[in-house]
Amino acid sequence: MIIDIHGHFTTGPAEIEDWRRRQLAAGAAGEALPDPTSIAVSDDDLREAVGSNQVARMDERGIDVTLISPRASRMGHHLGDGATSRDWARVCNHLISRIRDLFPGRFHAVAMLPQSPGVGLDESLAEIDRAHAEGGIVGVNVNPDPSGGHWTEPGLGEKYWYPLWEKLCDLQLPAMVHVSASAIPSVHAEGAFYLHADTTAFLQLASAPQVFTDFPDLKIVVPHGGGAVPYHWGRFRGLIQAQGGASLEERVFGNVFFDTCVYEPAGLAHLVRTIPTSSILFASETFGAVRGIDPVTGRAFDETLTVLRGLDLPEEDFAAITELNAKSVYPRIA
Amino acid sequence: MIIDIHGHFTTGPAEIEDWRRRQLAAGAAGEALPDPTSIAVSDDDLREAVGSNQVARMDERGIDVTLISPRASRMGHHLGDGATSRDWARVCNHLISRIRDLFPGRFHAVAMLPQSPGVGLDESLAEIDRAHAEGGIVGVNVNPDPSGGHWTEPGLGEKYWYPLWEKLCDLQLPAMVHVSASAIPSVHAEGAFYLHADTTAFLQLASAPQVFTDFPDLKIVVPHGGGAVPYHWGRFRGLIQAQGGASLEERVFGNVFFDTCVYEPAGLAHLVRTIPTSSILFASETFGAVRGIDPVTGRAFDETLTVLRGLDLPEEDFAAITELNAKSVYPRIA
Repeated sequence: MIIDIHGHFTTGPAEIEDWRRRQLAAGAAGEALPDPTSIAVSDDDLREAVGSNQVARMDERGIDVTLISPRASRMGHHLGDGATSRDWARVCNHLISRIRDLFPGRFHAVAMLPQSPGVGLDESLAEIDRAHAEGGIVGVNVNPDPSGGHWTEPGLGEKYWYPLWEKLCDLQLPAMVHVSASAIPSVHAEGAFYLHADTTAFLQLASAPQVFTDFPDLKIVVPHGGGAVPYHWGRFRGLIQAQGGASLEERVFGNVFFDTCVYEPAGLAHLVRTIPTSSILFASETFGAVRGIDPVTGRAFDETLTVLRGLDLPEEDFAAITELNAKSVYPRIA
Repeated sequence: MIIDIHGHFTTGPAEIEDWRRRQLAAGAAGEALPDPTSIAVSDDDLREAVGSNQVARMDERGIDVTLISPRASRMGHHLGDGATSRDWARVCNHLISRIRDLFPGRFHAVAMLPQSPGVGLDESLAEIDRAHAEGGIVGVNVNPDPSGGHWTEPGLGEKYWYPLWEKLCDLQLPAMVHVSASAIPSVHAEGAFYLHADTTAFLQLASAPQVFTDFPDLKIVVPHGGGAVPYHWGRFRGLIQAQGGASLEERVFGNVFFDTCVYEPAGLAHLVRTIPTSSILFASETFGAVRGIDPVTGRAFDETLTVLRGLDLPEEDFAAITELNAKSVYPRIA
């Protein structure tokens, strides 16, 4: 079984963005926010939007199951306020639940959180409970910088995040760290801010090993192949070594995982050579940041499964990366 | 001849940081700033500070010449104001000039610029002229984000930077894009902000190919192995392809170069395999972000020359990376 742990629902009907526009306009005008149940997306709309895109692509590529979450770049935690984010997360997560139910066996739901700069995590904890009760989620996306680039919240190594880590451990849910759109015009979201956030979040956690002592069952997934981390693995090993105490490997392995969303085949090969197999999870981020055909390979940029197959890994390593690690990091898949 | 194009003067006597402290304190108190000539560092101080560190290390490793610039993390463009930065750049650049003169044939001077958020580039242009007249510089470090993480200035693709590009082309000076300390406590400077800035600056330029049409002789060096770019080369190829027009390779090669400051040997091997030899410049960033001994290799993390030698490159490729490309990108070396 091939499990893709990083998919987003990015091919939805226009009504989703229309609803969000109405919501943000109402918030900006000081009017009552639209009710989260007022979004007009039918089951047929969802079947068509997902069946003709995500499911068709999965079938074509031999991906059995995708862990799907709301469109990351549209989480927009820096827009509106706590109430806007609360309702928008509920809308988006409910759509994900429905997709899971409409395509039995093909999807597991991963929730976005209703984060907003400066408002704390109470609404996020409540939304996890709500989504968990609503048919179940297998993980969440945690935004380490809901300000969209200004890093106004405490780093992930700070106690601020402990109630969230506690909730996630209680429910056996891993967290993928994933920012949303860039609020800074000169910083490209998918090309720069995403990778920066992956790198920064990784280093925040590696620099605060107490987190994984206090929460030994906490699982953190760093997407996009770990940002800049595996390429510069020696830089990070050296920076952590200079801090004294446990090595980088001792600090993070077992708790921190990288996905395989590296669209340069040689880069993906580097990831698999440099990071232990047990810390790598197959993913393609479909449909994500890069959707075209790579003229070098003649295949889609995000066809990472084909690249992985071409690496001629020992069978058990391939199975670990594409299936077994996912089942262990995301126990609720089972 | 082996030329290291990325060295910083990070082993200076305490008086340098003391002078800076006095300067920032005076600025904060609204008092007159200390005169740039008031710094008390003798030739003997400099000979000792550089001879026992940088030069000793160069001799040990077989590096003939280093392009040296002021300590990047202490440029502190987000501290003080335009006048503070003007004087501090003059102090730091003058020290670099003196080091070059004290060790004939071992160093070329690279200047920092007196940038400051919101003040424009006039002082930077003036400082380039001053440093150029004072014995010559072979390049400059340009900070794409003098705010220290908030990216308050226009992106490098904007016309805002044109007077600087014009000056650099006139004087045959390449620019290394290099930020300073992080003004955001949760964002690690050398582990996250540096790599983010490299990646962001690269994408700003790749997304604005007009810059290199308007300034065909402009040379930009992206340090730290290009940030996250070569690892995710396919991601960047795909993002640029989606913009239409010229390919990423057509847009940047010939104008944009990556240095070899990648402290994971397999990462450095990836760089050399992925990016054309003509676009790679040998560098170690000594003494820089990572100073310890790598327990995996038993060598210093920043001993990139040994790693390069171990790659068994064709002789002409090794010579291009370690010498010939530097002479072509930095014509004033000759």
